[in-house]
Amino acid sequence: MNGAESLVRSLLASGVDTCFANPGTSEMHFVAALDKVAGMRCVLGMAETVVTGCADGYGRMAGKPAATLLHCGPGFANGIANVHNARRANTPMVNLIGDHAVYHRPFDSPLTADTEGLARATSHWVRTSASSAQVGADGAQAVQAARSAPGHIASLILPADTAWGAGGVVADALPVPMRDAVAPEVLTHLVQLLRRREPTVMVLSGQALSEAGQQAAHRIAVATGVSLRASAQVARMPRGRGRVPIDRIPYAIEGALKSLAGHQHVVLVGAKPPTAFFGYPGKPSLMSPPEAQMHVLARPDQDAVAALEWLADALGAPAWAGAPDTGPRPTVQHGAFNPDAFAVTLAALLPDNAIVVEDAVTSGRSLFGHTFGAAANDWLQITGGAIGHGFPCATGAAVACPERKTVCLQSDGGGMYALQSLWTQARERLNVVNVVFANRVYKILQGELLAVGAQPGPASNELFDLARPELNWVQLANGMGVEAVRVQTLEGFADAFAAACARPGPFLIEFQI
Amino acid sequence: MNGAESLVRSLLASGVDTCFANPGTSEMHFVAALDKVAGMRCVLGMAETVVTGCADGYGRMAGKPAATLLHCGPGFANGIANVHNARRANTPMVNLIGDHAVYHRPFDSPLTADTEGLARATSHWVRTSASSAQVGADGAQAVQAARSAPGHIASLILPADTAWGAGGVVADALPVPMRDAVAPEVLTHLVQLLRRREPTVMVLSGQALSEAGQQAAHRIAVATGVSLRASAQVARMPRGRGRVPIDRIPYAIEGALKSLAGHQHVVLVGAKPPTAFFGYPGKPSLMSPPEAQMHVLARPDQDAVAALEWLADALGAPAWAGAPDTGPRPTVQHGAFNPDAFAVTLAALLPDNAIVVEDAVTSGRSLFGHTFGAAANDWLQITGGAIGHGFPCATGAAVACPERKTVCLQSDGGGMYALQSLWTQARERLNVVNVVFANRVYKILQGELLAVGAQPGPASNELFDLARPELNWVQLANGMGVEAVRVQTLEGFADAFAAACARPGPFLIEFQI
Repeated sequence: MNGAESLVRSLLASGVDTCFANPGTSEMHFVAALDKVAGMRCVLGMAETVVTGCADGYGRMAGKPAATLLHCGPGFANGIANVHNARRANTPMVNLIGDHAVYHRPFDSPLTADTEGLARATSHWVRTSASSAQVGADGAQAVQAARSAPGHIASLILPADTAWGAGGVVADALPVPMRDAVAPEVLTHLVQLLRRREPTVMVLSGQALSEAGQQAAHRIAVATGVSLRASAQVARMPRGRGRVPIDRIPYAIEGALKSLAGHQHVVLVGAKPPTAFFGYPGKPSLMSPPEAQMHVLARPDQDAVAALEWLADALGAPAWAGAPDTGPRPTVQHGAFNPDAFAVTLAALLPDNAIVVEDAVTSGRSLFGHTFGAAANDWLQITGGAIGHGFPCATGAAVACPERKTVCLQSDGGGMYALQSLWTQARERLNVVNVVFANRVYKILQGELLAVGAQPGPASNELFDLARPELNWVQLANGMGVEAVRVQTLEGFADAFAAACARPGPFLIEFQI
Repeated sequence: MNGAESLVRSLLASGVDTCFANPGTSEMHFVAALDKVAGMRCVLGMAETVVTGCADGYGRMAGKPAATLLHCGPGFANGIANVHNARRANTPMVNLIGDHAVYHRPFDSPLTADTEGLARATSHWVRTSASSAQVGADGAQAVQAARSAPGHIASLILPADTAWGAGGVVADALPVPMRDAVAPEVLTHLVQLLRRREPTVMVLSGQALSEAGQQAAHRIAVATGVSLRASAQVARMPRGRGRVPIDRIPYAIEGALKSLAGHQHVVLVGAKPPTAFFGYPGKPSLMSPPEAQMHVLARPDQDAVAALEWLADALGAPAWAGAPDTGPRPTVQHGAFNPDAFAVTLAALLPDNAIVVEDAVTSGRSLFGHTFGAAANDWLQITGGAIGHGFPCATGAAVACPERKTVCLQSDGGGMYALQSLWTQARERLNVVNVVFANRVYKILQGELLAVGAQPGPASNELFDLARPELNWVQLANGMGVEAVRVQTLEGFADAFAAACARPGPFLIEFQI
């Protein structure tokens, strides 16, 4: 058995059965091994940022890593932006990066690059396999590293001769370490703090935003009056009817400051201190009040759910009795696009158990607040700010959950970074309804220019304008085998969206706004 | 004056007047400075691989660096593949990478990444500006580094506060070091060697492939019988009628070995030792005969033209008397696509003084040999093997040379990596005729799978197949504002190509093969 086959078998033994791929010559033996070994689903992406973004969406929904198959340093580099987003989401991911045979590397042929340097700059775990006998064990360790809490990026570099060489050994799955428990003295400190009933906000992220985490946090809030917030970026959050209506900290700095103002204590539950996305002249980096005390209930790698549940019990909180009523079901709005009316319309139409993928900062700003009354859903958001995440993340989520409907909310500027994802959606006949907010401008940058205290002029407007020429998303989608329509009103959107949700396979709605 | 404005003025003072950009928040002060300072042409790309590929094409044709404007680590990462290609072409390039304000960085906000690590892994020169007072001088030094022979990648990281802070100082241009002369003892050694008239091949690359370099090499060949080859990848090579018909070393290993077989001496002129693109089981890495002696006439950073001219004179070679006759002008071929007939047809139709950009390994394999008789042109090829280079390189070359016609020969698989380039072509109304070889398969990988000794099967065929669904390049181009047609025969191609060359602005021809 060659190294490549031992690696495929080892990955399968470790539970990794899906591989998003954009292979090249150095990966040919891995590809050939796929023909010998049953059980690995391979999904082709026509650009590496599609591949890694798919693995992010898959990992968030499957709760286990996908593998990616990438070609040398430049191929990996093409996927780094979505590796970065996955890293910020604590998504488990195993990158397999083919590279030159060990003996060929000194010749510095054209594709030779600092693959290990690129992997180290972006991954938690990096290894270059040394021999075909070790590559199976390396694969098992990569999966273990990826699955260790809270989820890691593991990048395994495969010199071509470690793949084609004989003597491959299949490795068994390695145990995945349990999450660390929160220390008793931390829990005791938090009980004392929350009993004082001083103005306190809990910021939830990661595991704390699971359904169990939300329920325990809600019980604590009922018992103590503590405010609950989701972090400004959520990797995956169960939302909608039946779930606790927890708002997130806004992206815009003024809204974030307002959201956290007046609190004497900030309790972090799997979250980092709430920080502005960027530094702006004369504005703070930390979004919580400077005089507030910061407390860590659980680090991202700790068992936040157990800590919240213990805390709720210790505080004598009432048992979970269901989520608060979110009122009557929202209804379809009419007329031209505006962020609030769109959010209400989406909440009215979202199918049950949908996956919502959000990569639309300006058009999506109002989404959270208006969708508490939507049907139950899982909400996935861009976490690392490397835009162009929506299409590929939705594609990967749909691979993980073929029976559910995935709704991708994508800005047009961001959508152009990874539009090739649509082809993969068509190829795999994935149930994705893509909504493109076609404002034909880098609108976020117009706002950011003002936020840093500068004034727009001809050169800056030129660099933000996407209308010359206008993108035609219907043609772009059709060109990759995805049906599409263009709508200009909310009622037009509602009709198209309902029809798209009722049919199988991918669809794209260009909302001209 | 803030740092950003001092940087723009310093770049202009150093002769950098073109900036390919995909900016984000951290670059907003640089963008605002563009409104205050006249003279910097900014060209927007909707993905960073477009931006860096444009800078490569521009740098090759302009002979001086363009700037790129990129957003933080992930934005730079999206452009690395074409930075890699540019590095392999020795293209001068100045990357400006905006990043977080120095004081904001410790907060590890979502877009924080190892920007410097990514830049170091891919650039010759890296600096993070420390203050707004220094950023102008840093810019001048970046340009100097980029312009030093043979051409370098300089990456300047700009924390946002170095851009918005006051006290910017405009820096004067720094002198660019002359190329080193080849040492007299090397020249003497080569004279003695070539006088022996043993079977010898000269491999030319970089400056040695300039028109003056080719002419001197041809004189040496006439005087001594030495064979001439271009390196397997050429960054820029004047070709066609009136130029010396120098063939390149083939990409495929069998052809490369054959091309260099029988030579006792290999003389490198600005070139590296001829190396296989990949290592293959049981095949050599070095393409020249193992028993051949390797001689370096000029390193890539040395003055290869002066060395060749001195050598020609010392060998008593005849003066340059024009290029050999390449025979009658080729004529348009008929019927279905095949690589040879296409190359002849292209040679028949290529307009005078065109720029040809080639990123099509399988469909382009026969191009060189059949185009010696084409109209005079400059030929630009993908140099680093990171496919997806054609569209953006052609776009940047057309920005550098608006009065010439740029012909982009792009594989379909490769074209999908940076198809967003078409939008920039439409926006800037660039004179680019794009030809897409739509074989609907990663054909190169089918060959590579066999080359490494593996056999194709269902899984591997699935990963190479691009026909399900079929890409429609006419719709894709139209969706980005570029007119397009689909052709299926050489005569159909000839009509479309002639029409496209006769009109201004971009056009795309999808050749179904």
